[in-house]
Amino acid sequence: MATRSVKVFRGLKGENDKWAAETRAFLKEKKVIMINMIGSPGCGKTSLLEAVAARTQGKLSFAVLEGDLETTRDAERMAAVQVKANQLLTGGGCHLEARLVHHGLKDLEPDGLDFVFVENVGNLVCPVQFDIGEAAKIGFLSVTEGEDKPLKYPFLFREAKVAILTKVDLLPHLDFDVEACVEFIKRINPKIGIFRLSSKTGEGMDNFMDWLFKHKK
Amino acid sequence: MATRSVKVFRGLKGENDKWAAETRAFLKEKKVIMINMIGSPGCGKTSLLEAVAARTQGKLSFAVLEGDLETTRDAERMAAVQVKANQLLTGGGCHLEARLVHHGLKDLEPDGLDFVFVENVGNLVCPVQFDIGEAAKIGFLSVTEGEDKPLKYPFLFREAKVAILTKVDLLPHLDFDVEACVEFIKRINPKIGIFRLSSKTGEGMDNFMDWLFKHKK
Repeated sequence: MATRSVKVFRGLKGENDKWAAETRAFLKEKKVIMINMIGSPGCGKTSLLEAVAARTQGKLSFAVLEGDLETTRDAERMAAVQVKANQLLTGGGCHLEARLVHHGLKDLEPDGLDFVFVENVGNLVCPVQFDIGEAAKIGFLSVTEGEDKPLKYPFLFREAKVAILTKVDLLPHLDFDVEACVEFIKRINPKIGIFRLSSKTGEGMDNFMDWLFKHKK
Repeated sequence: MATRSVKVFRGLKGENDKWAAETRAFLKEKKVIMINMIGSPGCGKTSLLEAVAARTQGKLSFAVLEGDLETTRDAERMAAVQVKANQLLTGGGCHLEARLVHHGLKDLEPDGLDFVFVENVGNLVCPVQFDIGEAAKIGFLSVTEGEDKPLKYPFLFREAKVAILTKVDLLPHLDFDVEACVEFIKRINPKIGIFRLSSKTGEGMDNFMDWLFKHKK
């Protein structure tokens, strides 16, 4: 009796992981580092990339994939500072999936770039659950959100290689306990690197640029 | 031949809507108005409820259901201002579902209350898609998030009866165009009511309290 071949149907998550693995192989071949940027809406992801673009000194090249539900505003902000960017629209979806990232990435033709930054949909929960083939996740927290947020949304900070506290220029106007926040993040993930930045005033940007220069291949 | 009875299995969404309908009937019977509060992490939902608690003048009674992934911090904040609150933990879930809300609500024994406020998980996307049996949704936007967020996350503002711009005390320190933001929100939902508030300084709180007094049954 002939053996009947087994058909495999992948669920959404298995399908996602397949695309993420393909992306990871593609990036390895191209020697490009892809960073998955995750944080709340308006936490300062795009502003940070604008600040990075102004500080590359010709020594660092990058492109951007902008994830949003609707509008192409963030890709336009990148174009305005001469950074190659594709907009990924989820059409209402709360996170980026690996397939969409894969196609957007290939279309960027990232040969020769040091980094591709992916701005995920503004959301501290769902994007963490979907691997997109990145080398590392960066978790963002605006100091306007309150120092207890890492405890309330621990999953992102557990998975991230780096946490960035943004908008530190606003600290004099807020009741935000930086030391407590850093302690909360370290409690969740003792190995995480933590940066304190203001894209507006430039505070802390030198440290972050050093980190990027150090990690480029 | 006997007719075989048809068995119905509800998917997650149908099951959710069944619980939401039961909650709505329960609230109608009890003459309690339930408000579904939706906004980003740290947009000021709990702070607003603390500010409301300080201004009831004995003329308005309410309880709170606090939705979070982890921790009981927000319910503790409510208890500290003598407001009855139950904590609803999603265990990693990105939104509240109607079943959990239903059980948390019944346990509150809301007889005689004017309002039950439900603080959904901090997220501009997923909570909008799940009816929890509320009378109305309030959409929150902190002015620290940037005036373009209603365009990038339109679904919440399309469904909400009221939008609240929070943390307006920070406006002098931000590049936030209030008029543009109001225009963006009205473009998505011309009928929406818009409040501008600071729970910290109390600015705009009188208007919001008037709205609550006007809508209680």
